[in-house]
Amino acid sequence: MTKMALIVFSGELDKALATFVLATGAAASGWDVTLFFTFWGINIVRSENKCALEKKDVMSKMFGAMMPKGCESLPLSNMHMMGLGTSMMKKRMKGKRVKSLKEMIADAKELGVKFLVCDMSMDVMGLQKEEFIDEVDEIVGVGTYLKEAKDAQVTLFI
Amino acid sequence: MTKMALIVFSGELDKALATFVLATGAAASGWDVTLFFTFWGINIVRSENKCALEKKDVMSKMFGAMMPKGCESLPLSNMHMMGLGTSMMKKRMKGKRVKSLKEMIADAKELGVKFLVCDMSMDVMGLQKEEFIDEVDEIVGVGTYLKEAKDAQVTLFI
Amino acid sequence: MTKMALIVFSGELDKALATFVLATGAAASGWDVTLFFTFWGINIVRSENKCALEKKDVMSKMFGAMMPKGCESLPLSNMHMMGLGTSMMKKRMKGKRVKSLKEMIADAKELGVKFLVCDMSMDVMGLQKEEFIDEVDEIVGVGTYLKEAKDAQVTLFI
Repeated sequence: MTKMALIVFSGELDKALATFVLATGAAASGWDVTLFFTFWGINIVRSENKCALEKKDVMSKMFGAMMPKGCESLPLSNMHMMGLGTSMMKKRMKGKRVKSLKEMIADAKELGVKFLVCDMSMDVMGLQKEEFIDEVDEIVGVGTYLKEAKDAQVTLFI
Repeated sequence: MTKMALIVFSGELDKALATFVLATGAAASGWDVTLFFTFWGINIVRSENKCALEKKDVMSKMFGAMMPKGCESLPLSNMHMMGLGTSMMKKRMKGKRVKSLKEMIADAKELGVKFLVCDMSMDVMGLQKEEFIDEVDEIVGVGTYLKEAKDAQVTLFI
Repeated sequence: MTKMALIVFSGELDKALATFVLATGAAASGWDVTLFFTFWGINIVRSENKCALEKKDVMSKMFGAMMPKGCESLPLSNMHMMGLGTSMMKKRMKGKRVKSLKEMIADAKELGVKFLVCDMSMDVMGLQKEEFIDEVDEIVGVGTYLKEAKDAQVTLFI
């Protein structure tokens, strides 16, 4: 079985879109696909409405407030221009009948894509496992990513 | 035969240079090399003087005007500083007898590197197939990239 | 033996951390790991106190002065905010008992990770081989990276 193991490091809308176009495309062709969300990439799988269960320290609150909360508030890596780029891109994608990131995430899950979140990043950024979207399967260490990548034909750092 | 399949997502000069140093290096060693230009990366293969055949809508015109037109007008991902970084880098490369991006693109083609452009990106950014440089072989979907990547030893997301 | 060959193109603290978390994690599991530092990534392995042996031309001095000098002065790719992001991140990592980049670099070396520096980047940026940290094994061309990547299971562009 062909396998793809992607590291999702970046938290920008355009890179998240590229990730999910690849992931859903591969999963739809029967590939085994694993996404390892780490660093800024974990913001893609933050829930916009779920809350932390435990009380947060000041730094965790600061990080939490400064970072985008979920797939609908990600910036672009390019042409940001006070948010104009992001809204242009979203409007444009809709007009061209390209699915939204939210829809692609749901599709990916349905197609069996595995969602892993990096435990170290979660810890450093002060997030708790209750704050992620339901699509997330597991909070794991880098060793789990390496095990997945070891026999993957396609490995990418996004 | 060793194979390399690169996703060229970024449209900055430095990342484009890295792409073509890898592509020409590998192709010169007899590797089979495929480049899949997507998102901002498609600006690298925009022609500076070819024009669209069909009339463009307002958004396509805006995207077209905002994005760099071809390999000689790309910004740097770093040290941009009002363009100083780009001209410093270019001057420097010339002084050090490193080929320009334009020359590397021509070399890559001659060495048999395959140039694929992502159809979805072309569509979202409002570009038409007539607007790309002659080196481009085909406008394709993500499925074509995946097929190339499947049996490639080296896959990278740039 | 499982093998990983990473291209370290970016010179930001967060991407450098991701690189060394992957490198030390893989090497600790017995993998053969090669890092190829190129473009801005070579700043990660610049020594903060070693000096060039030969006299530098004006451009080399400018590049040298503008780029970060070593692993303790790298910026973040995101949330930079006048350096606040970097110091927040470093303080936070310390609080969470995550090793510093400097410690990870030393660990990587001890675990047998190979450090290669791109000769073309060194030349364009006007650095000399005496200016790198002791961990660097060799100054090599892109061909050496390709040879390492050819039989690596995991290849990433960071």
